Amino acid sequence: MFKVPVHQVAGHQAIGGKLGPLVDDDGRFYKPLQSGERGSTEKAFYTSFSSNTSIPEDIRRFFPVFHGTQVLEASDGSGPCPHLVLQDIVSGHLSPSIMDIKMGANTWPPQSPEDYITRCLEKDRETTSINLGFRIEGFHIYRSEESDLWKPEKQFIKSFSAQDVRLVLKKFVSSNASPDLDLNPDCAFASIVYGGSTGILAQLRELKAWFEVQTIYRFYSCSVLMMHGKGGSGAAVKLVDFAHVVDGEGVIDHNFLGGLCSLIEFISKATQDEYPNKTCLKDSENNRSSSDNCTCE
Amino acid sequence: MFKVPVHQVAGHQAIGGKLGPLVDDDGRFYKPLQSGERGSTEKAFYTSFSSNTSIPEDIRRFFPVFHGTQVLEASDGSGPCPHLVLQDIVSGHLSPSIMDIKMGANTWPPQSPEDYITRCLEKDRETTSINLGFRIEGFHIYRSEESDLWKPEKQFIKSFSAQDVRLVLKKFVSSNASPDLDLNPDCAFASIVYGGSTGILAQLRELKAWFEVQTIYRFYSCSVLMMHGKGGSGAAVKLVDFAHVVDGEGVIDHNFLGGLCSLIEFISKATQDEYPNKTCLKDSENNRSSSDNCTCE
Repeated sequence: MFKVPVHQVAGHQAIGGKLGPLVDDDGRFYKPLQSGERGSTEKAFYTSFSSNTSIPEDIRRFFPVFHGTQVLEASDGSGPCPHLVLQDIVSGHLSPSIMDIKMGANTWPPQSPEDYITRCLEKDRETTSINLGFRIEGFHIYRSEESDLWKPEKQFIKSFSAQDVRLVLKKFVSSNASPDLDLNPDCAFASIVYGGSTGILAQLRELKAWFEVQTIYRFYSCSVLMMHGKGGSGAAVKLVDFAHVVDGEGVIDHNFLGGLCSLIEFISKATQDEYPNKTCLKDSENNRSSSDNCTCE
Repeated sequence: MFKVPVHQVAGHQAIGGKLGPLVDDDGRFYKPLQSGERGSTEKAFYTSFSSNTSIPEDIRRFFPVFHGTQVLEASDGSGPCPHLVLQDIVSGHLSPSIMDIKMGANTWPPQSPEDYITRCLEKDRETTSINLGFRIEGFHIYRSEESDLWKPEKQFIKSFSAQDVRLVLKKFVSSNASPDLDLNPDCAFASIVYGGSTGILAQLRELKAWFEVQTIYRFYSCSVLMMHGKGGSGAAVKLVDFAHVVDGEGVIDHNFLGGLCSLIEFISKATQDEYPNKTCLKDSENNRSSSDNCTCE
């Protein structure tokens, strides 16, 4: 009944006898409650969020549905373990391309222990978090052939520069995405995935409007999951990973919001919506070499 | 001819034989070029900004006009020293109330030396910068009597909590602003200063729209200066202090922008624009005690 999810792109994975999430055939995602404060924080968030009547319905759809907790055999064989029971947000997609983007320049809640802040800050500075306000945490992209999947190693992704992020955001909506960063993406699905009234950009802008006013939660180290199916169908945005959510205490989540604005600006440049004369990406004036210009006309 | 500016609320001041800016009777502000990289960075910013044709005119008005540099006698008696010659942005105001707000959760450019980052980060965490995305750096407020000015000490301001910031933003538009944080502000000028189509909120939202797209500069440790004259007249927003501006390199200034969104949300709660049934501030639901509710009806 329980299986290892095949479309997980970041986080702990239930592979090789390790502890990780499981899915079933009914579209549910079972996430082992993390040890210590992380697990209790994530459970508390889902419990609070699912019962909070001040969350607009339009916003609720960006979060996995929460079905409570359930004790089941852990994937690492360690015995019964409490799991969060969530909606399997990719279960409706065939051959989904997925990208996990960790939001915010700072990934540490201010009240964290010093050594935790030090470790996070180091990673925030080594990756693009401080520079861009977000970092790509993981992704996989299907190409024209369904079986042909590009899923790079964590270490490769961690070393991304701003320019690499731009390129990968183009590859994410291309039918010829390949590990070779010198090969130009065709951006075949850019307009259908990123653009339009139901595309990813429109969804991110809806989220942004909420983050400009909501002061209930602050989402440290939370991820935006972007996904789309075969041919660019069913483009969707979800928020996941709430092990470091803290009370907003009347202050907006400027850290998440700043990163969200930056991500929107990055993607905007890749859609024809913003640049009607190009079907793909208009490079900013002075920071791209001609060699990585998009090849689509 | 040259005088010590009477309306300076933060930064180095030309008092007691120290080095600081001077003003003249023609509405010019002479800022000594800071030593080392800071001075050259600020001069380079003004030079670049004043000649950059891609800055919209509506945005240009938020920056002091730059009239080049001039060597004049330093205020500390150390002899001839190069000064930036800028518009004296308060020269048109009678009895101006002024607030200097240092923007961004992080005040350090990522490329800074380690010890500088450590020092800034410490201050960002001790003050409200990390929490709110901005911190009040200094202010003075005139009360009903022109001669009655409240200008608190730096140390007092540095210790502000989020709740103190809320209160001071109300006092800033009150005729009875007083050092006693237990005395309720009357918010007499809230609607005229913060609200309306030309008020501070409208101006901050114009700036925000630009920061959502501009990728030319990143304004680390820059301040928003809010000011208004007697009776709340002439509400204006200016940006000042560009000693830590770096090249945007095609990335938006998510750090400044996040803080700006937070400041807008804070002020929004203090204006009747957002809460037409109140002439002053609607407290957020759960984080204010009744004792510091606004007294205006």
